[in-house]
Amino acid sequence: MDRIGLSYEERIGNSSNSASARLFSIMSEKETNLAFSCDVADYTELLGLAELLGPEIAVLKTHADIVEGFTSEVGLRLMAIARKHGFLIFEDRKFADIGNTSVMQYAQGSLRISSWSNFVSMNVLSGPGQLEGIGSVMRRADDGNPRGILILAQMSSEKNLASGEYTRKAVEFGHANQDVVSGYIGNGSNPLELNMLSKMSLPGDVIMAPGVKMGGRADAMGQNYSSPDGAILAGADCIIVGRGIYEAEKPELAAVSYRKAAWKAYLKRIGSG
Amino acid sequence: MDRIGLSYEERIGNSSNSASARLFSIMSEKETNLAFSCDVADYTELLGLAELLGPEIAVLKTHADIVEGFTSEVGLRLMAIARKHGFLIFEDRKFADIGNTSVMQYAQGSLRISSWSNFVSMNVLSGPGQLEGIGSVMRRADDGNPRGILILAQMSSEKNLASGEYTRKAVEFGHANQDVVSGYIGNGSNPLELNMLSKMSLPGDVIMAPGVKMGGRADAMGQNYSSPDGAILAGADCIIVGRGIYEAEKPELAAVSYRKAAWKAYLKRIGSG
Repeated sequence: MDRIGLSYEERIGNSSNSASARLFSIMSEKETNLAFSCDVADYTELLGLAELLGPEIAVLKTHADIVEGFTSEVGLRLMAIARKHGFLIFEDRKFADIGNTSVMQYAQGSLRISSWSNFVSMNVLSGPGQLEGIGSVMRRADDGNPRGILILAQMSSEKNLASGEYTRKAVEFGHANQDVVSGYIGNGSNPLELNMLSKMSLPGDVIMAPGVKMGGRADAMGQNYSSPDGAILAGADCIIVGRGIYEAEKPELAAVSYRKAAWKAYLKRIGSG
Repeated sequence: MDRIGLSYEERIGNSSNSASARLFSIMSEKETNLAFSCDVADYTELLGLAELLGPEIAVLKTHADIVEGFTSEVGLRLMAIARKHGFLIFEDRKFADIGNTSVMQYAQGSLRISSWSNFVSMNVLSGPGQLEGIGSVMRRADDGNPRGILILAQMSSEKNLASGEYTRKAVEFGHANQDVVSGYIGNGSNPLELNMLSKMSLPGDVIMAPGVKMGGRADAMGQNYSSPDGAILAGADCIIVGRGIYEAEKPELAAVSYRKAAWKAYLKRIGSG
């Protein structure tokens, strides 16, 4: 059966990656398929928002490198909050180097991303070397945390080149490394394109989609948007919302609205709505 | 005239970007076209190698995020060493996000890359938004440091997807933003492919090439290599050497060997050899 008609609960058993299996389980139990992109510049604000919005979300997406004072210790505090509220952490690093370098960027340095993140993103412009390199670090980890890679299969920014042959290769490389690949980042701003990715993906693959905003259009730097409903019905399992929440007057109310809209769309998609 | 036959000195006036103009001037005066990729994990070792190899190199390439304890203060110390020895700093960040996020990754966080780097790299998978975003930060900078973007037009890792239409778009986006684009990263491991990039580039564009090693082959994670001579004759202006230098028993001697080989190839290329 097509992945799109299956419930998250049914798909837990389809995942051969620990992080996607855990995510399907969280989404199913907690009834939320919202990923919150917390792009704030101050680490106390980041921890505060994680605590505030933790009950509403399945995933907290970070850009640790834009946060003043972020170290691996802050990452571990974030992980404690994630455990308490039952969400996973996605460091959206968009690794883009050769395998040897990306492994160091994942496991070394002041951020030590490997120690506190569940998901990390990468594009596959450099080929499958990063999947093999970071994948082998993930396989060796023995702390019980689920870990997986989200491959940028599509993007939502204007004139982007992540389509066609690039997308096909992204999925091909992903399917060749299923134990460490959780799934794909798709183009939430274009339901037609997103649906093509969904059709290429397996039931165990998680598709997350940025470019989703209620009543939103493009920003000044070429980022496009569509609705939560459009993205979920096209095949996104998890919508990624950032500015729509943290720039709202009351982020907790905005998070509830996005959560409800995305969950309702999911129920409609699997025929329970 | 084809860029390949012109001297670095002649090309200073062809550059509409401050960092590429400065680099042509440094290479010409200092008689070195060597970029050293200093991928060490400790910041005191990084500063020590910068001091030791400073006299031999035109560019020091960093991955600040793999270095334990690297902060913007360390970056400023590195910049002081760079001024003393007359080289430029290239943070090889490979920005790969949408414009809005990349701007924050460039100018914010504990690394504050914008404050101590001359060159930064990016791929153009997300479209031209990053060029516009980071470019506008560069245009606003008023500290007198030359700044410019090196676009990943090609890569040297196995099964990479940075070729064909991707490469054409990379150069097209670059030429539309010449004041902030210093040039391109080409595939040093494949002289034929590198030469195609050279032919698409303008005399003011700097081409840097990784994947260069004396007597080198592939590493365990799919990174390929060719000789300094091959890369320079095909159109690279600057060879990027990492492990070939810092893994050598005496890095200073290895740097001298690479410097001499690359400079000799350059003199041959412009007909002075």
